[in-house]
Amino acid sequence: MKYPSGIKPKNITKDIKYDNRGMTLEKEINSANEYYRSMDIAYIYKKPTPIKIVKTDYPSRDKAVIKEAYFTIPSTTDYNGLYKGYYIDFEAKETKNKTSFTLSNIHSHQIKHLENIDRHDGIAFIIVRFTTINKTYILFIKDLLDFINSNERKSIPIDFFDKKGYIIKDSLKPTIDYLKIIDKVLEGNNGN
Amino acid sequence: MKYPSGIKPKNITKDIKYDNRGMTLEKEINSANEYYRSMDIAYIYKKPTPIKIVKTDYPSRDKAVIKEAYFTIPSTTDYNGLYKGYYIDFEAKETKNKTSFTLSNIHSHQIKHLENIDRHDGIAFIIVRFTTINKTYILFIKDLLDFINSNERKSIPIDFFDKKGYIIKDSLKPTIDYLKIIDKVLEGNNGN
Repeated sequence: MKYPSGIKPKNITKDIKYDNRGMTLEKEINSANEYYRSMDIAYIYKKPTPIKIVKTDYPSRDKAVIKEAYFTIPSTTDYNGLYKGYYIDFEAKETKNKTSFTLSNIHSHQIKHLENIDRHDGIAFIIVRFTTINKTYILFIKDLLDFINSNERKSIPIDFFDKKGYIIKDSLKPTIDYLKIIDKVLEGNNGN
Repeated sequence: MKYPSGIKPKNITKDIKYDNRGMTLEKEINSANEYYRSMDIAYIYKKPTPIKIVKTDYPSRDKAVIKEAYFTIPSTTDYNGLYKGYYIDFEAKETKNKTSFTLSNIHSHQIKHLENIDRHDGIAFIIVRFTTINKTYILFIKDLLDFINSNERKSIPIDFFDKKGYIIKDSLKPTIDYLKIIDKVLEGNNGN
């Protein structure tokens, strides 16, 4: 974890003990996905971090050690999988900003990817957590694109999430039960 | 690429020049997936290789260099994605054996994963290429499980692929047009 220079992460452990917000969004989503799998509800996984391997050593016959590698830009999103026969695809981001979410947090090719998924009848969205005020939203790609296409702004105000997004309420198990929102949307579609 | 001891990969380049079989199954599938994306047909990707990072250096502010990392066993399959609203999931393997495919080539948790996908209405299969005789098959997970559950054998004879699998014929663009088989199966399902 990186901290701004001058700030030491001294008291963070203490904060975590008394505050669920200490659990990062990524960890909560991974934990939710494990829960969904263990209950045979959904099979959604985080993809491995893409890496370009430059040098590998073989100190013994069976063991390869990667000695030089670099992080590369992911071509798609972090999470995808299967729920009730639907292909699910999303990206998850945290922001410390209290009032808006900066669009540059998501690569343009990831937005393009989510658009492709949506066009081919997959379920595509982003999960955004405003950590400072502890609010987590699902915003479907159609609404995200609507914003991008009708605004010059480089960030999405939280009002837009309140209007077009779906808030994911804290729950016990999993702590971030994001498939509840997907259920709600699927029910709505069936009702039409 | 690893070679059995004593065998040098000396003449392989020459073979590739005159023989399409020189292109590995993985490369052909990646190339097919690129073709499908470029034609807006399907969005299927190979997942990055899962790696456990042990040590990272930061020689400059922006650049992280991974200095020690290890390959880890993948928890799922190599390929997944979206086609015509269906969630697609598969593993691809080559074998030099002419008469059978050794089951240990596929991790048991990958078979379990494909079974989960199938139960939740995804399309789950393996692609197996018998490189020596240049035959490539799709075998759906249901048929793979049928074999495993009704046989003591640790390898699947090629007869079983001929009977229960679907051969993927060589084509021009993409060279391995595996979605043709999926189309055939989907048509068959709709006809029932």
